[in-house]
Amino acid sequence: MTANDHSPNHLQLTRGGQLRHFLTLDGLSRELLTDILDTADSFIEVGTRSIKKVPLLRGRTVVNLFFEPSTRTRSTFELAAKRLSADVLNLDISTSATSKGESLSDTLLNLEAMASDMFVVRHSQSGAPHFIAESVTPGVAIINAGDGRHSHPTQAMLDMLTIRQNKGGFEGLKVAIVGDVLHSRVARSQIRALNELGVEEVRVIAPGTLLPRDVESLGCTVEYDMERGMKDLDVVIMLRLQNERMEGALLPSEREFFRLYGLTEDKLALAKPDCIVMHPGPINRGVEIESSVADGPQSVILSQVTNGIAIRMAVMSMAMGGQMSERQQAQTENEGSRA
Amino acid sequence: MTANDHSPNHLQLTRGGQLRHFLTLDGLSRELLTDILDTADSFIEVGTRSIKKVPLLRGRTVVNLFFEPSTRTRSTFELAAKRLSADVLNLDISTSATSKGESLSDTLLNLEAMASDMFVVRHSQSGAPHFIAESVTPGVAIINAGDGRHSHPTQAMLDMLTIRQNKGGFEGLKVAIVGDVLHSRVARSQIRALNELGVEEVRVIAPGTLLPRDVESLGCTVEYDMERGMKDLDVVIMLRLQNERMEGALLPSEREFFRLYGLTEDKLALAKPDCIVMHPGPINRGVEIESSVADGPQSVILSQVTNGIAIRMAVMSMAMGGQMSERQQAQTENEGSRA
Amino acid sequence: MTANDHSPNHLQLTRGGQLRHFLTLDGLSRELLTDILDTADSFIEVGTRSIKKVPLLRGRTVVNLFFEPSTRTRSTFELAAKRLSADVLNLDISTSATSKGESLSDTLLNLEAMASDMFVVRHSQSGAPHFIAESVTPGVAIINAGDGRHSHPTQAMLDMLTIRQNKGGFEGLKVAIVGDVLHSRVARSQIRALNELGVEEVRVIAPGTLLPRDVESLGCTVEYDMERGMKDLDVVIMLRLQNERMEGALLPSEREFFRLYGLTEDKLALAKPDCIVMHPGPINRGVEIESSVADGPQSVILSQVTNGIAIRMAVMSMAMGGQMSERQQAQTENEGSRA
Repeated sequence: MTANDHSPNHLQLTRGGQLRHFLTLDGLSRELLTDILDTADSFIEVGTRSIKKVPLLRGRTVVNLFFEPSTRTRSTFELAAKRLSADVLNLDISTSATSKGESLSDTLLNLEAMASDMFVVRHSQSGAPHFIAESVTPGVAIINAGDGRHSHPTQAMLDMLTIRQNKGGFEGLKVAIVGDVLHSRVARSQIRALNELGVEEVRVIAPGTLLPRDVESLGCTVEYDMERGMKDLDVVIMLRLQNERMEGALLPSEREFFRLYGLTEDKLALAKPDCIVMHPGPINRGVEIESSVADGPQSVILSQVTNGIAIRMAVMSMAMGGQMSERQQAQTENEGSRA
Repeated sequence: MTANDHSPNHLQLTRGGQLRHFLTLDGLSRELLTDILDTADSFIEVGTRSIKKVPLLRGRTVVNLFFEPSTRTRSTFELAAKRLSADVLNLDISTSATSKGESLSDTLLNLEAMASDMFVVRHSQSGAPHFIAESVTPGVAIINAGDGRHSHPTQAMLDMLTIRQNKGGFEGLKVAIVGDVLHSRVARSQIRALNELGVEEVRVIAPGTLLPRDVESLGCTVEYDMERGMKDLDVVIMLRLQNERMEGALLPSEREFFRLYGLTEDKLALAKPDCIVMHPGPINRGVEIESSVADGPQSVILSQVTNGIAIRMAVMSMAMGGQMSERQQAQTENEGSRA
Repeated sequence: MTANDHSPNHLQLTRGGQLRHFLTLDGLSRELLTDILDTADSFIEVGTRSIKKVPLLRGRTVVNLFFEPSTRTRSTFELAAKRLSADVLNLDISTSATSKGESLSDTLLNLEAMASDMFVVRHSQSGAPHFIAESVTPGVAIINAGDGRHSHPTQAMLDMLTIRQNKGGFEGLKVAIVGDVLHSRVARSQIRALNELGVEEVRVIAPGTLLPRDVESLGCTVEYDMERGMKDLDVVIMLRLQNERMEGALLPSEREFFRLYGLTEDKLALAKPDCIVMHPGPINRGVEIESSVADGPQSVILSQVTNGIAIRMAVMSMAMGGQMSERQQAQTENEGSRA
């Protein structure tokens, strides 16, 4: 055991500091985040070729383990894995495996025994990918594709890639995150990444009912009034409003939300003239964002989707690389101790 | 803009006359249809090899976008794409993506942003593939896998391939299409193709309630009595009867339909002795066709299925080729105008 | 016609005695079973590589034809086929193809016409894979992935591989099969394989209500009392208890079953000290088996899963090889008779 084993990152990093799982942005250094962005940059080019394939995961088995359905996120991971030349197995656990009453743990043990190399995990419970990474056989990489309200680290990283592409870097930027921060696993990961990468200010803009208690402690300022909040912004990230929130007491109505926090051309005009507009999709047009803004010249929403494939290729290949170098080191040490 | 842009085919052909989308047979020349048949012929051989693969779409991403479920058609496109070495993503939109309330247009923009190269589209609304082709990014090919009552061009082309294989060509042939022409997207495409390829006569045989108004304008003769209609035929194409039609007032009963328009050995004997029997499948035995005829020596129904893979490989590879040559030309022109 | 055509194995063996379908263990010789185990052994190594691929089925089309849903079994066949480099088409027939009222026979004819090379068939009716093998086009291999109560030959063979790995061979072994033998397709295949491979004793341990009539005729001894039955065992194979049996009159309750026939540490202590514990999965912890036994040092349950991939790769590649050599021989004979 080394001191590393007790840091929050002993799970997702090798002793040499390489990524071996990708669970959360917490504890990841600016250097590592930049490494992910640089690796993703190199994959952007792959997407423009006619032969969109690199052999990095050739012969590897990637299992998409979705305990919560999400066609969109699953598709991007499936495409990313196929472009890395992996074999992909899609398991929609919400409808299938547990129908025979098998426990999560037994399902995982079985999939590992089939010589899977990577699990891409989506789960409604926060911490599920951590739990799996703790128990999984060495050599198998876990990628978090969204867990409960906790985090959605590939989404946050594709946002960072999009910001860097458009702004050249992070220094001096003022970035706002607007909307339902309380229920958003994306927002937590974004605030973490923006701070680590060194933006000047992360501002959250939302009604008090959609903010977590003590939100400032995450590393952001708070603004309840959107018009004031738009001032001086370089980047505005709109969050998706979960329609089901409307039915509770948290929000008056979609129309009222749009009036106060929807991104319109008028409100966008209050930000810097070159402020970019982001949204993780799918968009609720006329609820979080006006169509003319979503489709307008400042919107980079579709670049985010393109970058999502590149980021997923990056973390999948980096985590697999970390697992392999760890395995080699273990073998070397075993041979050393036997000699 | 050239004159071409205003012809019905500016959408599916490049300026050089190459296929770039495959939406409808309307407006396609006999030369181009023959080119498709010849290309498919070369793929028939691929299906007989142990290694049934050609690298024409290697590294390309083909998305099966089925807004209307059809396991059979989807499977043939999936196999065709895999035999062309493409990566395939199956999206059953009827059950998934729109569950989050995203519009068709936004779903498509997202899939394009994932660097998809081709959408195979099945939709219950006539014109949906055209609509998609109009708005899609240059470089992405759209293949119509059946839209509403409008058309099903790969089905019609596999029928043409089957006729040519068995009859050597089209000249002088008398071909009948029997059954529910009114609701059939296949029939419209078949009548168009048969006329363009130069058969002597296309005859539709059906009760008046199952014929579109002014059906002769499509390029066919009409016969209400099947016994008279069978006379001198070289080819008889049975249409599938949609069971749900029975429940309306359009038809008395399955038994009555079979008595009048079902293809029996007796009725088939009224055609030429070497008349071939076709059906797009799945067959309703004892409704449209007698089992002994479906399985008999004049039936080429299973050849149609085999030819379906070859035709789909042909139009997919031709459309991708058209997109690529168009892109190259655009680059050359850009460079020219810059110089 | 040769005498072979009338033996029970004319279906699954070529005239030269090679596997061409894999339907049942009945009639397969010790030599052939050993050949399957040896071939699987060579694939075990493939699963430990980073590039888990061999090109034996490259360009082949394998159709997973599941008339009864089973995510787990389907996944192992899918992975096995992909590691053999085949193209895989998953068809869940229970929900799809027959929705248009097509018969099993027509569905199969269509899939054959698409130039499929292999059908992996799971069906709730005993004999369905035999029926399909009887009617299928020469050149297409059928693999039984479980049919009714009849047999599940790949499951039995992966069990044999696991026994051989742990015991070095079969001679002199005492093996018990415990639980619901009556409804188990696995048990029949296991009893057959164990006898052919030459174990000393196959013992079934179960209440009389869960035993088939005249069970001894399958080649086993019977023990109703588990404590007596555990004596001298080298291998104990627990069967999965189908929960739905509980609702009938066959069993008093899960708790009562566990008390009498569940494998506990205490009962396991009555067997030989190196007795291994097997279960086909998914496990009902606390019903058939105590968790500490399932996860204990004598359990080889997860090795069974790993071996399942290797056995499926073995029978798929052997059956394809048999089909090819038969086809070549037929061609040679045709040429000979023409000359």
